[in-house]
Amino acid sequence: MDEVDAIAELIINYNELNSSVVTELDEEPSPLEFMRFVAKNTPFVVRGAASDWKASQTWSAQSLKEHLADETVNVAVTPAGNADSPSQNSDGTLVFAKPWEEDQPFPSFLDYVIQQEKQPNIPPGEVRYAQTQNDNLRHEYSSLFAHVPPTIPFARIALQSPPDAINLWIGNSLSTTALHKDNYENIYVQILGRKHFVLLPPHCQPAVNERMLKPVRYVRAEEGSELRMGGEEDGGDVPFAIWDPDRPGENRTQYSGMVEPARVTLERGDMLYLPAMWYHKVSQSCSEEGICVAVNYWYDMDFSGPLYPLTNFVRSVNASRNKD
Amino acid sequence: MDEVDAIAELIINYNELNSSVVTELDEEPSPLEFMRFVAKNTPFVVRGAASDWKASQTWSAQSLKEHLADETVNVAVTPAGNADSPSQNSDGTLVFAKPWEEDQPFPSFLDYVIQQEKQPNIPPGEVRYAQTQNDNLRHEYSSLFAHVPPTIPFARIALQSPPDAINLWIGNSLSTTALHKDNYENIYVQILGRKHFVLLPPHCQPAVNERMLKPVRYVRAEEGSELRMGGEEDGGDVPFAIWDPDRPGENRTQYSGMVEPARVTLERGDMLYLPAMWYHKVSQSCSEEGICVAVNYWYDMDFSGPLYPLTNFVRSVNASRNKD
Repeated sequence: MDEVDAIAELIINYNELNSSVVTELDEEPSPLEFMRFVAKNTPFVVRGAASDWKASQTWSAQSLKEHLADETVNVAVTPAGNADSPSQNSDGTLVFAKPWEEDQPFPSFLDYVIQQEKQPNIPPGEVRYAQTQNDNLRHEYSSLFAHVPPTIPFARIALQSPPDAINLWIGNSLSTTALHKDNYENIYVQILGRKHFVLLPPHCQPAVNERMLKPVRYVRAEEGSELRMGGEEDGGDVPFAIWDPDRPGENRTQYSGMVEPARVTLERGDMLYLPAMWYHKVSQSCSEEGICVAVNYWYDMDFSGPLYPLTNFVRSVNASRNKD
Repeated sequence: MDEVDAIAELIINYNELNSSVVTELDEEPSPLEFMRFVAKNTPFVVRGAASDWKASQTWSAQSLKEHLADETVNVAVTPAGNADSPSQNSDGTLVFAKPWEEDQPFPSFLDYVIQQEKQPNIPPGEVRYAQTQNDNLRHEYSSLFAHVPPTIPFARIALQSPPDAINLWIGNSLSTTALHKDNYENIYVQILGRKHFVLLPPHCQPAVNERMLKPVRYVRAEEGSELRMGGEEDGGDVPFAIWDPDRPGENRTQYSGMVEPARVTLERGDMLYLPAMWYHKVSQSCSEEGICVAVNYWYDMDFSGPLYPLTNFVRSVNASRNKD
């Protein structure tokens, strides 16, 4: 095809009609106001929306350790904070690196996270991140669940369903979540520390350089030994973005320079609406105590209507182009 | 491109996730319920929504003639009810035929419409249709405006604007509106007679066989003479669908057979939400009196968000394919 490059046209056309600055609201939207953002598949942030949550008011390293004094939790462990990220294996091949997962008493997990953050001169060693995205706040961390609302009312009413999952994230500034997307409407809430989001709408797929990567998991051969990359995981190759908007010159496609990533930092108590299928890269800064804690609510997205098939269409046209 | 045909995939993917049956509601939606349909760019019909409007309760051929006894109105005149339609000119070329427009006293216009409808054995002659889509109900027909609501509350609240135009349509069963689309959110209300809609979502552009047609207007050289096609109008060729879902074998593209047109008939008092950019073909049946009367409210569509650029993208990919 393309005397006129339809993909370039799409990206430019969208940029002309949409701002890459995330709208800031001073208070939670009504269900109708929220639905207008859902209709436009466009993010917003509500500053201070969760300031009066019990979690915001009471959580600290100390209180979390007290609440979870006797709990054992699942921890994702990686050499450099690169869980679920494109990473090079020993022969230089790019693979999709999954974390080693191990159970650990919560207090010693949190001590490790804090010590690593607060004593940066000590060689970093492994990075530990509580990031099980399996509705963990209603299960593994259920003793904390009463400290947050059981649902986000404006989202529940607008989307007509309870949250499919509520996830708690606890880690330090060494953990990063690589650019990816989820088929969920996402309400992301910062409790302690800060999160730094880089966002791209779904039609930017041709800019993110999605590749089929072999899934590989870090493994610890025996207790106390160092992590090493294991063999290929079952389930086949996974499509994953290898372009990083923070290193725009590397792994770029001809479209990477055309997209306009939105950047927003969530401070303590802030709430982000991250629309379904948006690419997001997330990094974090810690509270003075040396931890970063967030909660997110996943609501099922609506696959009916034109957006999901049209997003697939962009991927498909881009794939055809790459075959030319 | 295309070992895999991305356009075919798009149409099939959409069909799998969406019904081609128009949702029927028993009462008007709330603004939030309406916004859910806007978000999905998906039509619905509300049976009987306008039954208690003064227009529904009081309009008849007689009452309209009384209200507009002294008014002169703009009438679109065509040989066969084909205003704003692809039509063949004398040498067989397909052109975009615009109607001859003339001013006429309203009572004699309505008598003509009724007589033509009620006496089908008389050779039909010209077809007359009051169809100026220039906010005519608040201007040319302003004496009738108090008989309908000044806005549709659920739409005004959800879309945060008053209607951009409110249009009145008066004609008989010989007039048809060819398959086309508008960049407006449309609330269409049937007052007398019935309207038959054939609907296709915006991504079906590759199925409708859009061509660049020369705009030509019917003209009447002198009073009393027959209409003939005039020369080319200014403004350049217009892109227009030449596939007619009611004659699916003619002027088809390789995609025409894949789309699933939705069909819905509005009875007296029914209201249709016709989402922005949807292709619609409209034909009509008359009341016992021999007229068909409807009112529609156009609200500005939101060009931000992904749908408008993605709809352009489908057109652009299809155009590239046709060039291959």
